[in-house]
Amino acid sequence: MTVRSRSLKSSYRQTDMIKVIAVGKIKDKNLTSLITDYQSRISHFHNINIEEVADVPATKDQNHSKNSEGEEILKKIKKTDYVVLLDLQGTALDSPALSDKLADWNMRYSETVFIIGGSDGVSEQVKKRADFVWQLSKLTFPHQLTRLILLEQLYRSYKIINNQAYHK
Amino acid sequence: MTVRSRSLKSSYRQTDMIKVIAVGKIKDKNLTSLITDYQSRISHFHNINIEEVADVPATKDQNHSKNSEGEEILKKIKKTDYVVLLDLQGTALDSPALSDKLADWNMRYSETVFIIGGSDGVSEQVKKRADFVWQLSKLTFPHQLTRLILLEQLYRSYKIINNQAYHK
Repeated sequence: MTVRSRSLKSSYRQTDMIKVIAVGKIKDKNLTSLITDYQSRISHFHNINIEEVADVPATKDQNHSKNSEGEEILKKIKKTDYVVLLDLQGTALDSPALSDKLADWNMRYSETVFIIGGSDGVSEQVKKRADFVWQLSKLTFPHQLTRLILLEQLYRSYKIINNQAYHK
Repeated sequence: MTVRSRSLKSSYRQTDMIKVIAVGKIKDKNLTSLITDYQSRISHFHNINIEEVADVPATKDQNHSKNSEGEEILKKIKKTDYVVLLDLQGTALDSPALSDKLADWNMRYSETVFIIGGSDGVSEQVKKRADFVWQLSKLTFPHQLTRLILLEQLYRSYKIINNQAYHK
């Protein structure tokens, strides 16, 4: 029995994953520390990986960098993944609604992917691939700060899902 | 002429102010650094002060801490101040709309006050004093992270007001 539940747990650990795909590196070390801290807290509840895609410098063709970044983003996504795109044009959720959705996605899909685009957003191809478009806020945030806000909200969601108290 | 514009500028510097009144201290040093950095960047455009109010531990009477904190908040507000309360029940704005409002408030009032309440929000008295109630997002953020998001948005607003490029 012990062996069996261990092996089940280990198989769960290997497959179920939250993946954050983000364009660009976080250059500020304070922001990096805060993000790493939330990532580590989330990992007590669920596997989580952050994968960065290099940001392509803007050229005269406004779509060039979005398209190049978009190709790299799509390479990191599997057909079976559930894809959530963070975008100003998306649907706003309150924290309890987000936690309900996250619990549902985690149950139905082995990988849930959150995409944070670059300064100019993402390509049309990436928008088409998204299963859900989520508006964090009507406000425009720098994409580096968006990563911190996303991780804090994922952590908050797991605290809600697991009925644990959490500071407001 | 030079002397006169200097004296005008100096009188502006002494009176016009953005004041952030926030319940509780920021304990995380990385978050403190990020907040201090935005505060310093904003100060190139406008005077800004952050004033903290001690958070009162929760008792059986849920309103006790809110009321005590509320009294301290109200002591810091002058009759002539324009008061913006950050609250989930408020009106959401996009960043350009916020910058329009901020430019208007700065022109019409010598002090604009932003209030970030504690874990359980603010007292009814503080709500009554508010001239505008602003919803940063439908999501609930920890109030320490709220301070960072507010300062980033104020900085972004001044970049927009002054037609300066700024990263998304």
